[in-house]
Amino acid sequence: MEKVRLIEVKENILSDNDAVAADLRRTLFASETYVINLMASPGAGKTSLLLQTLPRLSDLFSMGVVEADIDSAVDAEKIMKTGVKSVQLRTGGFCHLDASMVKKGLDAIGYEKFDIVFIENVGNLVCPAEFDTGAIADVMILSVPEGDDKPLKYPLMFSKCSVLIVNKTDMAVLSDFDIKKLEKRVRRLNPGIKIFPLSCRTGEGLGSWTGWLEGAVAEFRKGIST
Amino acid sequence: MEKVRLIEVKENILSDNDAVAADLRRTLFASETYVINLMASPGAGKTSLLLQTLPRLSDLFSMGVVEADIDSAVDAEKIMKTGVKSVQLRTGGFCHLDASMVKKGLDAIGYEKFDIVFIENVGNLVCPAEFDTGAIADVMILSVPEGDDKPLKYPLMFSKCSVLIVNKTDMAVLSDFDIKKLEKRVRRLNPGIKIFPLSCRTGEGLGSWTGWLEGAVAEFRKGIST
Repeated sequence: MEKVRLIEVKENILSDNDAVAADLRRTLFASETYVINLMASPGAGKTSLLLQTLPRLSDLFSMGVVEADIDSAVDAEKIMKTGVKSVQLRTGGFCHLDASMVKKGLDAIGYEKFDIVFIENVGNLVCPAEFDTGAIADVMILSVPEGDDKPLKYPLMFSKCSVLIVNKTDMAVLSDFDIKKLEKRVRRLNPGIKIFPLSCRTGEGLGSWTGWLEGAVAEFRKGIST
Repeated sequence: MEKVRLIEVKENILSDNDAVAADLRRTLFASETYVINLMASPGAGKTSLLLQTLPRLSDLFSMGVVEADIDSAVDAEKIMKTGVKSVQLRTGGFCHLDASMVKKGLDAIGYEKFDIVFIENVGNLVCPAEFDTGAIADVMILSVPEGDDKPLKYPLMFSKCSVLIVNKTDMAVLSDFDIKKLEKRVRRLNPGIKIFPLSCRTGEGLGSWTGWLEGAVAEFRKGIST
């Protein structure tokens, strides 16, 4: 077989927002607000995960949600129907969130009132990975129908997140998705990543994720108080 | 219910590559090469669609494939295993293709030898929609597990494509995907769009798509000769 020809077209599209992110993170430590930057492809289940997670933790934590989409406010409306405070960032074509946008959303929702604020980033496995949002934790979702080869193609996203949620495990019967192959590919990029296979539709596996989150928030507070 | 609060964060990230795209398109008309810019989320089935489409049309057309990914050459390798000529553009972090990158890929593969060249864009429903690649047709895939609300969130992609392929119809039994709702939402943005529901896994519906493509190439040539 002829060898595949590679043509490099790398360009640098990153602007430096690290200072804004570092500032924001200091503010969040001061207010003891655990902010999660939730990233995934379109339709992987970001909003579904929030709709399943919020009621499971509502006795333990006060929580808010900052939604981001290029257009529409459907996600924030879904969240608000559950009684959880939510604002919608409309990016107007912008493909990711940077730290200053996240700061706007957090200020608008009044982040200092909350134990946890979830930022639902724009549905995109590429650009959001490139920008530090100032959040305390980066969490991503991969859904089973997307396939187990995605770490090969979107390595930065899998490298930078501390948690990988593998959603739609109930759809595995209709695909050749191999969780072992996925794990191997992910751990090659990111050995310490936590992986939670679950189904937001059936509820299977959600307890492990919310249990981890509960512990992570406790650790975060301990870090602050010591 | 409290009204959702909207915070506008629009910024202009587009650079003008329209002149390059227009030039490229003129070249493609001259060489009678029908170039398709294929766009979708990660894992929606771009490579699967090509693997199903190429053998079905190989008696009628000479075809080539330009693959694009941030990293890896797995897609081009899959295509080349079928005996179809393919090159891999490695974008090195870049989240979309513009006309000059596509031109590089087409030059590398020798586009003038082919009746049809498929460009598999980076898996992303956002950024690729913003750039004219110089292709003759823009085709997108939405897969059933992504959900029927995606036209509300990624309106530009659904507006600019002349064809929408709805892949993974075999997974509809495990979701609340409503094709009628999807069609209504898409046609509000793009009344003339062709919609082909199909499953690359079962083969269902593929004939309508390849039949349309055969006709589109014939029309393209007629346009050239008159």
